[in-house]
Amino acid sequence: MAAQPAGGQKPQKPFHIVSPVLESLSLSKAAGTKVFMKMENVQPSGSFKIRGIGHLCQDAARRGCRRFVCSSGGNAGLAAALAARELALPITVVVPGSSGPTAVRKLQELGATVEVYGKVWDDANSRAQELAKTEGWVMVPPFDHPLVWEGHASLVRELKDSLEDKPGAIVVAVGGGGLLAGVVAGLQQVGWQDVPIIAAETLGAHSFHEALKAGRLVTLPDITSVATCLGAKTVAARALECARE
Amino acid sequence: MAAQPAGGQKPQKPFHIVSPVLESLSLSKAAGTKVFMKMENVQPSGSFKIRGIGHLCQDAARRGCRRFVCSSGGNAGLAAALAARELALPITVVVPGSSGPTAVRKLQELGATVEVYGKVWDDANSRAQELAKTEGWVMVPPFDHPLVWEGHASLVRELKDSLEDKPGAIVVAVGGGGLLAGVVAGLQQVGWQDVPIIAAETLGAHSFHEALKAGRLVTLPDITSVATCLGAKTVAARALECARE
Repeated sequence: MAAQPAGGQKPQKPFHIVSPVLESLSLSKAAGTKVFMKMENVQPSGSFKIRGIGHLCQDAARRGCRRFVCSSGGNAGLAAALAARELALPITVVVPGSSGPTAVRKLQELGATVEVYGKVWDDANSRAQELAKTEGWVMVPPFDHPLVWEGHASLVRELKDSLEDKPGAIVVAVGGGGLLAGVVAGLQQVGWQDVPIIAAETLGAHSFHEALKAGRLVTLPDITSVATCLGAKTVAARALECARE
Repeated sequence: MAAQPAGGQKPQKPFHIVSPVLESLSLSKAAGTKVFMKMENVQPSGSFKIRGIGHLCQDAARRGCRRFVCSSGGNAGLAAALAARELALPITVVVPGSSGPTAVRKLQELGATVEVYGKVWDDANSRAQELAKTEGWVMVPPFDHPLVWEGHASLVRELKDSLEDKPGAIVVAVGGGGLLAGVVAGLQQVGWQDVPIIAAETLGAHSFHEALKAGRLVTLPDITSVATCLGAKTVAARALECARE
C-alpha cells in the first residue's frame, strides 16, 4: 500500500477486518449456555491488537509521525509493525530477550527494525521510551493509551451488529488491560453498559488480579507465566478504573 | 435457530459467513509475489463446505425434505450436520471406519445420527445412497452436485469484493472436485474466466490427476493418503470438464 498523505482529507480505512463471530459447540456444552467466539485470530496481524494500535498509528501519521517505536515481541509488536507497513513509515520494535527468534523473524518479515533489550516486557518498554524521545518518533504503547482503547472498542460495535441478542456476559483476557478498557468503552458506545465482563488473567502474570485485591496498581516482581510476552508487570490504571465502574 | 417454514417467501440468509482474506507473509516470501489466503477455516462448520452444502440443504428444505443423509466423516459431514441443525431437520451421517472417534463425536455434538459403515468414503457413500431412497429423505452429496458448486461460487464473488486487483492465479485443493467446480462457476459469474486455476491434490488420493492423465474419469483402487476423509476414489465428472474448459 502506498504512503498516505499526512493530514489528507479522506478518512483512512481501518487496518482491521470485521471478524467472524462463531458459536463454540464445545464451550457451549461445557458452560451450559451458548458461547460465541469473536475470531480475532484472523485479523491481519493475528490478533485484536491491530484495532487499537492501527487506530493510534493512523492518528500519529496524520500528525506527522516519522518513525514508530514499540516495545513488544508479541501481538502488539506485530500489530504496530503491520500498521507502520501500511502507512509506509519505519518502525523500531524493542523486544525483551524472552521473546525468542520466531517473534524477531516475524517482526522483521513485516519490515520492522528489531532491537533485543532486557528480560521481560517492562525492560524493553523503558528502552523504547528512551528512543521515542527522538524528534518525530512516536511511541506505540501496547495497551495503555486512550486511542488504543478507542480502536479496540470497534470490537463491541461489531458484536452488536452480529449477535441477535445482548450477551449475558463478555469474557475478556487481560494482559495489560487494553482490551478490557476497549470493551468497556465499546459497551458504553452501544448502550450495553449493563453487560457484565468476566476478566480472565494468566497466573504468573496476574497484575490485574493483584491490583484489584490491593485496590491500587501493583507491580509484580516478575512474569513467571510461560506466556512471557502476554503479561505486563503493571496493568493499565484505566483497567482498575474500569473494574470500579 | 427455529425451523424455517418450508416454501416460505423470505429468502433465507446463507449459513456461511463472508470470510476474511489475509496476505500470508511467509507464502508471499516463498512465492516472490503477494499470496492471499481466503480464511475458510473460520466458517461456522470449519470449512468452505458449508457454502455449497448449506445452499443445497436450504433448497431441499424448501422442497419439503424431512431428513438429510450424508456420507462424510470430514468437512462435508460437518457442514451437512450444521445445515440440518440450522434448518431444524434431522440428519443421518454415514461415515467410513477410517474417520475415527473424533469425527463421530463432532457430528453427534451437532445433533447428527451417525452410522459407521465400510472402510473409505466410497463405501459409506453407497450405504448413504441406499438410505436416501426413503420417501422424504434427501441425500447431501459431499461435492458432486450443481447446487453445491453454486453455493461454493459465493467464495469468488467475495474475493472480487475483497481484492483490489484481479488475481494472477487461484490455487484450489481438489478432493472430489467440488471446490474446483464452484470456483470455475464463480470466476465465470464475476467475469474472471481468464484467471488461471492451480489445482493441488493429495498424493495417495489423486483421482483428479489420474483422470486428467487418462483423459477420462479414473477410479483409484484405494485411498493411500493419511488424509483418508479428504479423498474420493473418483473425482466429479464436472471437475474434468472444468479442466477442459
